[in-house]
Amino acid sequence: MSSVEEPRIAVERDGAIATVTLSNPGKLNALTVSMWRELARAMNALSAEDALRCVVLRGAGTEAFAAGADLAEFAKVRNNAGQGRAYHHEYVGGALKAVGECRHPTVAMIHGPCVGGGLELACMCDLRIAGESGRFGVPINRLGFAIAYDELAALLLLTGRAVALEILVEGRVWEAKEALAKGLVTRVVPDAKLEAEVRATAQRVAEGAPLVNRWHKRFVRRLAPRPAPLTEADIAESFAYFSTGDYRIGMDAFANKKKPKFVGK
Amino acid sequence: MSSVEEPRIAVERDGAIATVTLSNPGKLNALTVSMWRELARAMNALSAEDALRCVVLRGAGTEAFAAGADLAEFAKVRNNAGQGRAYHHEYVGGALKAVGECRHPTVAMIHGPCVGGGLELACMCDLRIAGESGRFGVPINRLGFAIAYDELAALLLLTGRAVALEILVEGRVWEAKEALAKGLVTRVVPDAKLEAEVRATAQRVAEGAPLVNRWHKRFVRRLAPRPAPLTEADIAESFAYFSTGDYRIGMDAFANKKKPKFVGK
Amino acid sequence: MSSVEEPRIAVERDGAIATVTLSNPGKLNALTVSMWRELARAMNALSAEDALRCVVLRGAGTEAFAAGADLAEFAKVRNNAGQGRAYHHEYVGGALKAVGECRHPTVAMIHGPCVGGGLELACMCDLRIAGESGRFGVPINRLGFAIAYDELAALLLLTGRAVALEILVEGRVWEAKEALAKGLVTRVVPDAKLEAEVRATAQRVAEGAPLVNRWHKRFVRRLAPRPAPLTEADIAESFAYFSTGDYRIGMDAFANKKKPKFVGK
Repeated sequence: MSSVEEPRIAVERDGAIATVTLSNPGKLNALTVSMWRELARAMNALSAEDALRCVVLRGAGTEAFAAGADLAEFAKVRNNAGQGRAYHHEYVGGALKAVGECRHPTVAMIHGPCVGGGLELACMCDLRIAGESGRFGVPINRLGFAIAYDELAALLLLTGRAVALEILVEGRVWEAKEALAKGLVTRVVPDAKLEAEVRATAQRVAEGAPLVNRWHKRFVRRLAPRPAPLTEADIAESFAYFSTGDYRIGMDAFANKKKPKFVGK
Repeated sequence: MSSVEEPRIAVERDGAIATVTLSNPGKLNALTVSMWRELARAMNALSAEDALRCVVLRGAGTEAFAAGADLAEFAKVRNNAGQGRAYHHEYVGGALKAVGECRHPTVAMIHGPCVGGGLELACMCDLRIAGESGRFGVPINRLGFAIAYDELAALLLLTGRAVALEILVEGRVWEAKEALAKGLVTRVVPDAKLEAEVRATAQRVAEGAPLVNRWHKRFVRRLAPRPAPLTEADIAESFAYFSTGDYRIGMDAFANKKKPKFVGK
Repeated sequence: MSSVEEPRIAVERDGAIATVTLSNPGKLNALTVSMWRELARAMNALSAEDALRCVVLRGAGTEAFAAGADLAEFAKVRNNAGQGRAYHHEYVGGALKAVGECRHPTVAMIHGPCVGGGLELACMCDLRIAGESGRFGVPINRLGFAIAYDELAALLLLTGRAVALEILVEGRVWEAKEALAKGLVTRVVPDAKLEAEVRATAQRVAEGAPLVNRWHKRFVRRLAPRPAPLTEADIAESFAYFSTGDYRIGMDAFANKKKPKFVGK
């Protein structure tokens, strides 16, 4: 677990600012089960610290924020609806919840791909600052599976229905400029200035009264209108893709680097 | 009914992509009762087809998407509150519902005026791609009547309260660039490239797993927070304009191509 | 009360258009208790007038819309949680409600600072037209106090969660161009053209059927999904900052023109 090459979540502190790094070397920081779980634990632990003022969430290196879930382990850990519920609700949902409910303000620092689960994590942060290399999308209709409700809710926190549908149904990956115009990121700067801009922003946040920042996060959540509670049938439907042929077609095509030919069942 | 000059809804197929065309020649494709009803039927029928992957909704020709309801027939079919309820809830509302609930992803292709009921139809599509000639507005406060709740809900699906109020209360018609900046359209391209862009987009949509696209549409709808249900009094109020003098003033001014002078009662 | 140097709310009429002016000379029109109360009274009275068509809300002069609440009187009128509830719910909340529920369309005309309570007032208007000098923010985390729920709701009417969190947690003051890009204002024009643009806009609004404009305002409000009702505990929490040391630190630093050093309790 200690090798620098293993998937992991690193936490560093610089005064009152903590940096949480998503690291999966050679895989554009794609998130594994162990990373989702470690991220939830790390964020919950940081949230409990009274002396912190701001948490920065980033990918290791400057190549990617996170290219989504690590599909390589899907065959083992997420291969049927039962595993899917555990994977998405417990592991992914747990990490999204921990980021979203962190008491301290959070800033996502985004280089390169910020896709699928990576984008959802960024959506749960309070601010999203991207370099021009930022790339944004949720192209899972190419893989034959659907977004889980917790993850869709993360997207809809930021964007209205139109942008969420565009990103999901068209399956394109957007450049930073388009993501900015559509409200998916807070601001875009040249990559060479990204670290400095994030540091300056975290510093500005950290200079505010910390209890006030925590209250403001709570109050904004409190005023959000909510949909009717999800039923068991809603949740079951959201994992029904596991029993489709198109799910196998999508995953096989991805594994074999081919374009999938979906059949609609 | 078969003459090319009659108002009608045409449906064509190109592989897994259907194109639905609003056609009212010489009237900028303004929508008649027969068109609203035919559109609902056509969309419901297409929705039931399993082999479809995407539906494009457009105006006939390249002059207009649709310049709203065809006011010429209002004196006959929508001249009091009772007719108004049937017209807006049954005919317009039925068409908006059929477009919004189409199982397949929908793309509006927009040349020229996309106004009133035309804009509301475009709002119910999943993507809205406009040429630079696109013109957007709901200038019905010039006509002395108010928007029906189903139609206002269509606008509010896309835009927040501020943009909806601006478009309704100011009564301006926006150019495509402004509509894009305000989130009313997905993207804008030169008119000469509009058909190619819509085709490429529909193709991208059609390459996604179709069940996943259908689920994503359902899930986004499922997570939308809703207002308290409308009461009979709400609905009656929304058609109270029929009993105002200003409604007659607005309609007469329109018929006589004059500027209305409203009196506020 | 009649001296031009006293804080006051002025009301003028030009035909069917009324202009309400926030005036606190030498203080960038910062709002005092008497101004909040006078504004509520003035807006309620204008709302009741049948002959009006549009209300413009502006700051006196061309230096500022309103630089928020007048902090100079806080020590006397808003110095503990009990006073805070009266101040924010009764005086500020009363003015915001009167602006938001005005039957006639409202247009904010914005020069210079439009900050804190000034921005919240602008948010309650139907249209917000800013000169390039417009400056927008709610940097109260620098003062050690939190936004009241009525005031946060005003912000969230216009912007989603992301923009509200950015403005509150980062504590920056935005230029007009950024406010436009983030949906906080309707449009931006050069300062030299601001009065003419507001006049033309109010005129466009006034040419619409007045009952229709009033209905449209009501219908948009009617369709807004609402959060669960606030509890007594929610409201008490929103004023808990009065019992923190950071509140005193923030207010003292402001009074002494120093940068506050918050301690998190």
